[in-house]
Amino acid sequence: MTGILGHNYIAGRRSVAGDIRLQSLDATTGEALPGHFIQATEAEVAAAAEAAAAAFPLYSKLDPLRRAEFLDAIATEIDALGDDFVATVCRETALPAARIQGERGRTSGQLRLFATVLRRGDFHGARIDRALPERTPLPRPDLRQCRLGVGPVAVFGASNFPLAFSTAGGDTASALAAGCPVVFKAHSGHMATAEWVADAIIRAAEKTGMPKGVFNMIFGGGVGEILLKHPSIQAVGFTGSLKGGRALCDMAAARAQPIPVFAEMSSVNPVIVLPGALKARGATVAKELAGSVVLGCGQFCTNPGLIIGIRSAEFSEFVAGLADAIGAQPAQTMLNAGTLRSYASGVALLKGHAKVTHLAGNEQAGNQAQPQLFKADVSMLLEGDHLLQEEVFGPTSIVVEVADHAELARALQSMHGQLTATLIADEQDLDDFADLVPLLERKAGRLLLNGYPTGVEVCDAMVHGGPYPATSDARGTSVGTLAIDRFLRPVCYQNYPDRLLPAALQNANPLGILRLVDGVSSREAIV
Amino acid sequence: MTGILGHNYIAGRRSVAGDIRLQSLDATTGEALPGHFIQATEAEVAAAAEAAAAAFPLYSKLDPLRRAEFLDAIATEIDALGDDFVATVCRETALPAARIQGERGRTSGQLRLFATVLRRGDFHGARIDRALPERTPLPRPDLRQCRLGVGPVAVFGASNFPLAFSTAGGDTASALAAGCPVVFKAHSGHMATAEWVADAIIRAAEKTGMPKGVFNMIFGGGVGEILLKHPSIQAVGFTGSLKGGRALCDMAAARAQPIPVFAEMSSVNPVIVLPGALKARGATVAKELAGSVVLGCGQFCTNPGLIIGIRSAEFSEFVAGLADAIGAQPAQTMLNAGTLRSYASGVALLKGHAKVTHLAGNEQAGNQAQPQLFKADVSMLLEGDHLLQEEVFGPTSIVVEVADHAELARALQSMHGQLTATLIADEQDLDDFADLVPLLERKAGRLLLNGYPTGVEVCDAMVHGGPYPATSDARGTSVGTLAIDRFLRPVCYQNYPDRLLPAALQNANPLGILRLVDGVSSREAIV
Repeated sequence: MTGILGHNYIAGRRSVAGDIRLQSLDATTGEALPGHFIQATEAEVAAAAEAAAAAFPLYSKLDPLRRAEFLDAIATEIDALGDDFVATVCRETALPAARIQGERGRTSGQLRLFATVLRRGDFHGARIDRALPERTPLPRPDLRQCRLGVGPVAVFGASNFPLAFSTAGGDTASALAAGCPVVFKAHSGHMATAEWVADAIIRAAEKTGMPKGVFNMIFGGGVGEILLKHPSIQAVGFTGSLKGGRALCDMAAARAQPIPVFAEMSSVNPVIVLPGALKARGATVAKELAGSVVLGCGQFCTNPGLIIGIRSAEFSEFVAGLADAIGAQPAQTMLNAGTLRSYASGVALLKGHAKVTHLAGNEQAGNQAQPQLFKADVSMLLEGDHLLQEEVFGPTSIVVEVADHAELARALQSMHGQLTATLIADEQDLDDFADLVPLLERKAGRLLLNGYPTGVEVCDAMVHGGPYPATSDARGTSVGTLAIDRFLRPVCYQNYPDRLLPAALQNANPLGILRLVDGVSSREAIV
Repeated sequence: MTGILGHNYIAGRRSVAGDIRLQSLDATTGEALPGHFIQATEAEVAAAAEAAAAAFPLYSKLDPLRRAEFLDAIATEIDALGDDFVATVCRETALPAARIQGERGRTSGQLRLFATVLRRGDFHGARIDRALPERTPLPRPDLRQCRLGVGPVAVFGASNFPLAFSTAGGDTASALAAGCPVVFKAHSGHMATAEWVADAIIRAAEKTGMPKGVFNMIFGGGVGEILLKHPSIQAVGFTGSLKGGRALCDMAAARAQPIPVFAEMSSVNPVIVLPGALKARGATVAKELAGSVVLGCGQFCTNPGLIIGIRSAEFSEFVAGLADAIGAQPAQTMLNAGTLRSYASGVALLKGHAKVTHLAGNEQAGNQAQPQLFKADVSMLLEGDHLLQEEVFGPTSIVVEVADHAELARALQSMHGQLTATLIADEQDLDDFADLVPLLERKAGRLLLNGYPTGVEVCDAMVHGGPYPATSDARGTSVGTLAIDRFLRPVCYQNYPDRLLPAALQNANPLGILRLVDGVSSREAIV
């Protein structure tokens, strides 16, 4: 932890006005790590929001290619964080080094992908309707539309991806790409990690000449609430629990000026194993699915928490195989003590429910999470029991057996919104159960076939979002390039001369981007 | 009013279960018009929401070309509504026949424009990232994204555009285009008009074979709140007052499942008259601006409610000319008695304020609205006085004189969010005051130059939206084709076979639309 100062970052400088000292814990031992982090004072939180607001006019109007350079520079700085950094993240999160090295690459790759989006230029949403001076009864003026950043964005990072969904993660990357300065609330679970990454961002900002205040970071408990309520903040990105996300949504909605919150919260990610696939490869699916359930100690938003199949000898055999596979998995250390407590209480609730049977897993005790498998009566789904609708964060899953195709459809219909919904199916299953697809489309942001939901590709086509409570706004995604849309708003220019228009809308099309001109997509200049 | 039954419309049928009878009033005389409208019962409101939900799976998955036929058919039916219909609208709203005829054409044109959008196909937002089976360390699966309707939409129409922002107005048209069935809460100010238009929609739905429940309509006071709280409703479109819109937003945010509300509410639409333009054509601008202020009795969301200029002899002369022009305007009948009461109380508040001077206008009394012009001290803007930030709906405007360029910038900076912001400027002004443009971009959804905000073109590039309180979500527009985006959400398909994908994502590109394929825009088939 050499060099950790534990200061807040405001307008490109370190700030330490408060006297509440916080410590980061070793996730494996629970011991306090050396060094302190100083909780931001109310004045510092306000100063961070105001620094972002002060940077916004300049930053949002920068040539998008300059913002791309900034994102690329952050990526370079993050790639350069070496073994000391990885060791720090591992100590704070108990995640293995290989995983952190992979996540480092995912994080820098994500930043570079947003730089590509800025160069590609479709994010501008450029639309031009040329003047029709001869139109009767009224002429049409020249009208041009493009999208600009909404303003300063508050980002609340997740504990489970200390890099890819945290300080320089997808929310930060997409907000910065959109031209929105960020105030990042450091996660208490990895404050030293956050400082390393914030330093990397600040170095990149200095090297590429970004305005002070383009990125700010505050430490502390309760400071997030103050941040969200600051009038300069115009949107919020959050990844975490349903309780935490909903609380932020409620506070944002109650502001004098309500602001949008993009919260990615709770999903049980149903996996439906269909009869043909079960017959052909039930044993393999059981092993693979067990691997997905316990991957990263089950600490994924897309962890498969519900496994549904139709009653049959093959399904019983599959469930027995799944129970064997999960029962054979070792205990793992969770991200922090709070996460373990939540897991233990979630497991206890399931164990204590009259309609839930425990199928596999050692007694949940001690300092690690024991993988578990349960079976729940389908009536719990059909009757809307909350226990099956809200994720138990950790290496556990619940099997539900349905009587037939019709009951399967009813069970899926009864589910709340999801990040993912997966079909394990062979060709005949797809013919027989094609009616499930439109149903799943209404329930989830991503539909998988013969895969497992725990891998989330960062690309143009990804949707890491979905109807409530998976997220607070099904129209957004927090992974993939479409994430930039959350932080953009359209602006229309009527009868403006070329020199006052954004480059995206100028006659000559200096950016060379695709634009909708009089209803036709075109890269042509306007003459 | 021949043929008016006053029944609710649920699932394509008329429904009348309640016993609360409402009457529509003649806007000019205040007399009750013949016939009754039966307030929907709670059960009927629920039935309407459920009918929309029942229609959603089929309607949202219809070939978009079928939805385009439906929109075109509504347009045809609305164009065919004849003189009896126009007379009905005129009686209910006191708007002149020529205006209603024009608005009829605007309404049918808007529906046809959304049909064009459906045929053009960019609303699909199709994105394809092809599988990379050889990628290391992990292969990439095939990922494809397009956008689907969010679900049933509740629409609350505006009083001031009984056609274009009401029953078959922009919110209804964009929701139907997006594949979302609609439950329309009829405005109490034009219930007979609403029935005529609902009949037209139902005829079009029948002629084009749309599912029952694609459009539903309910009458009554308080039924909107019940509707918004129904779990089937997934989004809300609203045009009206800040108070009404904010109340809906608060209720939507407090639902077990919060839903987005797109409320277009309050804007004072500042017009900044710059020195060069004043010198060159101050007198003309004064006359034109007066015309914009009193157009349609000032009952436009984009009515110029604030006129700002820099102290000078020319500005004083301009203000005198504006006062003369507004003072010479006749009184006009407003949409209804409630609107007139609000106008009178807004005018009285201005008259009673110590920092506001009355420049022109007859005493506000009687059954009509008297055009008024006021002048307010710039300190009211700088100190955030609410009186200058919230629109007085009607034929009135407020002049603010600033000392210089710097104070002008400060005054604009102090303004809340706006639908529009207008510069009246000559070439030299644009050089001298170019710094105002980025400031106005942050404040408004549409920036006009040398025009008046009261005309809102329906086209691809229009933005009729803006930061709060102009709307509840600056990322939307309620006029123009981008309005469809409000009611769409992205869905991603991972590793899905062609036959289960939406047509927009199939390999052969059967719709012939532009898609983002591996980061490149293309109409090519995937091979």
